[in-house]
Amino acid sequence: MDFAVIGGDMRTVRLAELLAARGNSVICFGLEGGESRALRHAGTLAEALEGAKNVVLPLPVGAGETLNAPLSASEISVRELTERIPRDARVLAGKPEGLFAQLAGRRGLAVTDYFAREELTVKNAAATAEGAVEILMRELPVTLLGAKILVIGFGRIGKLLSLRLRALGAEVTASARKCGDMAWIEALGLRPTDTGRLSGALAGYDAVVNTVPARILDETLLSQLDEGCLCLDLASKPGGIDFTAAQRLGVRAVWALALPGRVAPESSGEAILEAIENILREESGGTETVQPYEKNDFDII
Amino acid sequence: MDFAVIGGDMRTVRLAELLAARGNSVICFGLEGGESRALRHAGTLAEALEGAKNVVLPLPVGAGETLNAPLSASEISVRELTERIPRDARVLAGKPEGLFAQLAGRRGLAVTDYFAREELTVKNAAATAEGAVEILMRELPVTLLGAKILVIGFGRIGKLLSLRLRALGAEVTASARKCGDMAWIEALGLRPTDTGRLSGALAGYDAVVNTVPARILDETLLSQLDEGCLCLDLASKPGGIDFTAAQRLGVRAVWALALPGRVAPESSGEAILEAIENILREESGGTETVQPYEKNDFDII
Amino acid sequence: MDFAVIGGDMRTVRLAELLAARGNSVICFGLEGGESRALRHAGTLAEALEGAKNVVLPLPVGAGETLNAPLSASEISVRELTERIPRDARVLAGKPEGLFAQLAGRRGLAVTDYFAREELTVKNAAATAEGAVEILMRELPVTLLGAKILVIGFGRIGKLLSLRLRALGAEVTASARKCGDMAWIEALGLRPTDTGRLSGALAGYDAVVNTVPARILDETLLSQLDEGCLCLDLASKPGGIDFTAAQRLGVRAVWALALPGRVAPESSGEAILEAIENILREESGGTETVQPYEKNDFDII
Amino acid sequence: MDFAVIGGDMRTVRLAELLAARGNSVICFGLEGGESRALRHAGTLAEALEGAKNVVLPLPVGAGETLNAPLSASEISVRELTERIPRDARVLAGKPEGLFAQLAGRRGLAVTDYFAREELTVKNAAATAEGAVEILMRELPVTLLGAKILVIGFGRIGKLLSLRLRALGAEVTASARKCGDMAWIEALGLRPTDTGRLSGALAGYDAVVNTVPARILDETLLSQLDEGCLCLDLASKPGGIDFTAAQRLGVRAVWALALPGRVAPESSGEAILEAIENILREESGGTETVQPYEKNDFDII
Repeated sequence: MDFAVIGGDMRTVRLAELLAARGNSVICFGLEGGESRALRHAGTLAEALEGAKNVVLPLPVGAGETLNAPLSASEISVRELTERIPRDARVLAGKPEGLFAQLAGRRGLAVTDYFAREELTVKNAAATAEGAVEILMRELPVTLLGAKILVIGFGRIGKLLSLRLRALGAEVTASARKCGDMAWIEALGLRPTDTGRLSGALAGYDAVVNTVPARILDETLLSQLDEGCLCLDLASKPGGIDFTAAQRLGVRAVWALALPGRVAPESSGEAILEAIENILREESGGTETVQPYEKNDFDII
Repeated sequence: MDFAVIGGDMRTVRLAELLAARGNSVICFGLEGGESRALRHAGTLAEALEGAKNVVLPLPVGAGETLNAPLSASEISVRELTERIPRDARVLAGKPEGLFAQLAGRRGLAVTDYFAREELTVKNAAATAEGAVEILMRELPVTLLGAKILVIGFGRIGKLLSLRLRALGAEVTASARKCGDMAWIEALGLRPTDTGRLSGALAGYDAVVNTVPARILDETLLSQLDEGCLCLDLASKPGGIDFTAAQRLGVRAVWALALPGRVAPESSGEAILEAIENILREESGGTETVQPYEKNDFDII
Repeated sequence: MDFAVIGGDMRTVRLAELLAARGNSVICFGLEGGESRALRHAGTLAEALEGAKNVVLPLPVGAGETLNAPLSASEISVRELTERIPRDARVLAGKPEGLFAQLAGRRGLAVTDYFAREELTVKNAAATAEGAVEILMRELPVTLLGAKILVIGFGRIGKLLSLRLRALGAEVTASARKCGDMAWIEALGLRPTDTGRLSGALAGYDAVVNTVPARILDETLLSQLDEGCLCLDLASKPGGIDFTAAQRLGVRAVWALALPGRVAPESSGEAILEAIENILREESGGTETVQPYEKNDFDII
Repeated sequence: MDFAVIGGDMRTVRLAELLAARGNSVICFGLEGGESRALRHAGTLAEALEGAKNVVLPLPVGAGETLNAPLSASEISVRELTERIPRDARVLAGKPEGLFAQLAGRRGLAVTDYFAREELTVKNAAATAEGAVEILMRELPVTLLGAKILVIGFGRIGKLLSLRLRALGAEVTASARKCGDMAWIEALGLRPTDTGRLSGALAGYDAVVNTVPARILDETLLSQLDEGCLCLDLASKPGGIDFTAAQRLGVRAVWALALPGRVAPESSGEAILEAIENILREESGGTETVQPYEKNDFDII
């Protein structure tokens, strides 16, 4: 078998379908709940893994004793899994950590983290931005057209979300800390504000979206929001909003995690496929001649 | 005097006006040709520099014996300049190099290169992108609406130019080398192509814009362009187009250098002002608490 | 009382709040379910209407014996309503028809249809377009970024929806019948196709959105859609999709009616307020000097 | 000959080339200056017109004794022209008027005004909008990014220009008179203002662009503009700006006429071709079943 695909969610189903559609031999285990007519399922974990050249594991693999496999009829033991993966197989896993990482390391398996690929991170950011737009549309009693929205943080998600909101006619303020990011905010037609000086600058917004993985919106800041202002947190745990304080203050706060897989499983599966294909191509010597100059850009005088 | 502003072009004139408008005492030398009614001009270089707390020099300072001062009635000697700058003055210079850098170093002057500021580079990229749009509009016999345009390189200028062209209705393909940049190109709604594999993929374009400071468009590639396709080079010397080959082949090629100062001197002067203000604020202990997390963004699973 | 507001949904609640916030005396009946703290409710219909200068009725008023009043604790009789409205009151109603229109006409009431105002129609179209984007995001397993979407009809909704989808990175084809509309489609950076020649041109779409109030997507056309293609109908009854055929063919079809009030009640209430204010200003002689030339535009040679 | 193409500018050259490229037999007269290698030129007007099925005349034809033919080696007499056009030829002319219209009418020639086609007007508006963007970029010392611009009039050009300026990052205010147009302005994410109440509302703009063919910017209004504000007039004669007053007041004013042919002759030639093809198809019975419902849109409640 070219690929054994073990565990995962609808993204993994899509990924397995696409691998097969490209002419690879593919066998799955733990994806029965996906109800895909295009997939071939193994009866046992052992059958799925026997002789597999590549083993694809979910995103995230999960940190405990059982594999992340919400579509599986039964639990999949991480211990059995790492035992049964052929020693010479290439293992492609999303965010390998905890017990799995430990056992795989002990057995000397060649594990590559496809979640570390920049192209996947960017595509996930695009899907997250779109999911955030959907949530804002659903939760706000006003149209995004004309709404005043603050996006905190100007990393990948902050950039892509701000641009989408602006394109839909919202008045978007984006916050950052660094002078260079401030300039980017202005160069993209958005209003800049300083993440470090939000106190006193939070009135007038219909919604505030946090993208920074640090406790930004504490009780003091939350108490400065307009009545009815929606708080949306896109940051992973521990999150950027003090939800306890929000509840106490009557601030409506939504914490949206893992959006890519929830709002766009097919696109997300395709993005994982692309990351995996890039990994395999590069490992097999397919040259990706990265040259440094694009990073530094060049002088504009 | 708070500021002595010596040499430079219309950007410097605007910069000096803005410094004065903010309540600083400002004296100029070598900006007479700017015909600004708001500026105070010194009779001699010595008069301008005497007792100056801050000395602002042009972008670029220039590498030779004379200062870059196209608006000056007479030449300004770099040797005299470095002699007369007060030892305790803060010197703010754009891209200091060559003789100036050597002499200033020997005298122990405190020179800060404002051109090295990321916020200025980004704003210059925005102005360059806009200037490139203007040139394309002027040179092409077709509207950008519906035009097929290839932008080579996805650094700052490539990004900002591609977005503007798309917003005007062009069909934009952007090229990059890294997988992550490819993902950005797609996340922004553009078509990706590989900078390293342009050969055979150059047909059908109304214009090709290079932003990469390396010889990309050599004779082989130039010969693959459609008849009438315009080549615009935004890269600084030595440039990304083989202009000799272009002429031989009858390819219309334009090399646009130093666009920010030419197409938007006022905005460029404002951008320099902002960079200088940020430098002074940071040097005087004005905290810019740069924290690392926005660089790494956070996990989106 | 300046305004008696009778019946309606959350849009009407917002409208009543805004009328009061502008300094008018406002009394409501049939809006108890809206739970607005800012509103004053009358105990009986008679009390609400007595001496009212302006009477605001819902959108739509409703065609039968009872007023459209989903937030009311009890039914409101159209017969009693028309009896009790003061003869000299100005009545502002949304889409007055059926029994109400008949009785109001018989009593000689001065009824103005605020739904007939172009500004309200346009704002409703904007809210409908946004609601359609939300539905597409929710229902599609792919991101709108990169999705291929056909928008049938290029009236107000078609225009506003197509532009929003394009801004989000979708590949948008818009269909129309008239040459002028085709030119608009191209001028806005979209791909044109002929509404009258959709047969044979329906492959490859992730979603098809109908905005034309005529049976466009019949069994023949529905059978040509890609597997998994989503059909969204925004046309009012009888709708533009043959839903029976869609079910038979296994085509996923969604009929979204009355989106403005559902997705953005506050913005919709504000839009109704604006229409009502324009009506009152114009009726009181506030000049709206409409001049004809903007309709004809002018010559561009 | 299928087509005799007489007089005109570079748009006409492109039009003739495209007619030939589509397989028609085409002969030209008065286009020698266009230096097109693809065209066949007649030695005399008589030769060009003899037996021609369709005769294409310039845009505009011109009102006087000679045809509008800037690329012709010699003048072309309108009298001779109308004499020599075969009686059964279909004549396609741009804005036929004055002497030509009179003589053609007297001879009973079948003249169709292709300039009256909505699709051509819209495409010309798009080219005009793009030309206006180019002029603003060239003339303003600031970038359009961040510039404050007022567009007067929200007809075709006003719409397309406002959208392009907004897409480039300008803060765009658009003016109109009708409530419905105001709603369109907001629905497209722009700021509305009342064309009839510009007095007192003209401060703070970097540029004001007039698209209304009526004297809007008189001395009173011009005197209210900020120093340095650029006035751009896109309206045909007599124009919307009092240029004499502008000069007296020191207001920089630019009157840009006939932009489509000047900034994008090829695209404009293609647009004329499309209009002519539509005319011929419709006249030959090619049904364009225009149905009225898209005009009225449908109810959104």
